[in-house]
Amino acid sequence: MRALVYHGAGKKDWESVADPEPVDPTDAVIRVDAVTICGTDLHILGGDVPEVPDGLVLGHEAVGTVVATGRSVGTVRPGDTVVVVGAGPIGLAAVTTARLFSPSAVIVVDPAEPRRRAAERLGAVAIDPAADDPVEVVRAKTGGLGADAALEAVGIPETFELCTALVRPGGRVANIGVHGRPATLHLETLWIRNVTITTGLVDTRTTPTLLRLLAAGQLDVSSLVTHRFRMADFLEAYDVFAEPGRTGALKVLVTAG
Amino acid sequence: MRALVYHGAGKKDWESVADPEPVDPTDAVIRVDAVTICGTDLHILGGDVPEVPDGLVLGHEAVGTVVATGRSVGTVRPGDTVVVVGAGPIGLAAVTTARLFSPSAVIVVDPAEPRRRAAERLGAVAIDPAADDPVEVVRAKTGGLGADAALEAVGIPETFELCTALVRPGGRVANIGVHGRPATLHLETLWIRNVTITTGLVDTRTTPTLLRLLAAGQLDVSSLVTHRFRMADFLEAYDVFAEPGRTGALKVLVTAG
Repeated sequence: MRALVYHGAGKKDWESVADPEPVDPTDAVIRVDAVTICGTDLHILGGDVPEVPDGLVLGHEAVGTVVATGRSVGTVRPGDTVVVVGAGPIGLAAVTTARLFSPSAVIVVDPAEPRRRAAERLGAVAIDPAADDPVEVVRAKTGGLGADAALEAVGIPETFELCTALVRPGGRVANIGVHGRPATLHLETLWIRNVTITTGLVDTRTTPTLLRLLAAGQLDVSSLVTHRFRMADFLEAYDVFAEPGRTGALKVLVTAG
Repeated sequence: MRALVYHGAGKKDWESVADPEPVDPTDAVIRVDAVTICGTDLHILGGDVPEVPDGLVLGHEAVGTVVATGRSVGTVRPGDTVVVVGAGPIGLAAVTTARLFSPSAVIVVDPAEPRRRAAERLGAVAIDPAADDPVEVVRAKTGGLGADAALEAVGIPETFELCTALVRPGGRVANIGVHGRPATLHLETLWIRNVTITTGLVDTRTTPTLLRLLAAGQLDVSSLVTHRFRMADFLEAYDVFAEPGRTGALKVLVTAG
């Protein structure tokens, strides 16, 4: 059979391999008909895994964000100004889920033009940090105070530090991004500002909430899928996903055939 | 008249000065009979300011800590393990107020032996970081998990970073210290650990709570006063306060006479 084989970071190929066989009693071979790419992970959408409609898995990514940023997004109040730094799939999911709490404004910061357009389609105001200083723009929109909540959806020190600069006294910074390096925390200014910083990982306890929101039509996650590929074109799918600035890729759907 | 005159950081002297006179309509000259030293501040305990009994102002420092660390100390749950890094007056006040929420253990980290003894008198377990690794000690006491809450009561990057290492997944770090330099936030380990970090400044909204707690005998703040001086010996009072490792100073009371 043909398979996408992962040989380590940056080393993957579409290869001919032996048909899989269970070895241990706990092994299982499952047929996968459709997946989406999330970093190096794949999310199974269809196949032998029963009862997983497209919307559920795509939606889970969105609703998971609510819990990942838990005490912060979950405490967005009507009228708040929320800033989301990073407009990839997770950042856009954060825009969608933050709206469940009725903020008066959602502002998105991302250097990639296609992602800013996607954020605007979700009703956010988009800032290009190469053209405008996000801190100045957000202060101008909030009477000089800053955002009530700043959500970090990138995963690098610079964007986390930007969030701590964007937030108003008494505000909340929620880290959603996956980080590989430490950031600088400017306690010399933050110690007096009554801020709350949260980190958190998505978990599966949100599934019941997700199902209710999808069933009620409260989350439109279909716009997150920007590209579709057949499984034989798996490497191209990864290439498209890896260059969102050029391709505008958000979620890339890969189906059997 | 004689006065303690502040000429800038580290430059103060007990000098002869002209008697004070109101210049602007909003000026006032008040007589001060007793103060305590808090860093470079003075807390007025008695004099022309009416109805400020000793316990109230000393207690305010303690109860203020509850609100300064607000959402963190205020969410200490019965059975929690709480670590307080720094056993100066604020750290000891944090020990006292954390107890209002019935933690099962309060652990204090401080290199100064007199301060560790003061923490032990308040029922805390004291760690000397020069002799034992606080992270190892706290993990050993918590089944390898770490503290439910870690309170930073020093104000330097190293102690803040220690707090983020001491806290368990899902735990809370509350910054109380006044910081002059940035700290390193190890997001590469914290992003996945569901931690909450809060900063906050004491405010005066706690006064009603303070009065109720003092009236009910729930806060013993008298042990915070370790030294008493007459006002003519003000410079010596500051010297004693500046070297707690040698003098064991916590709050230094200065009275007229």
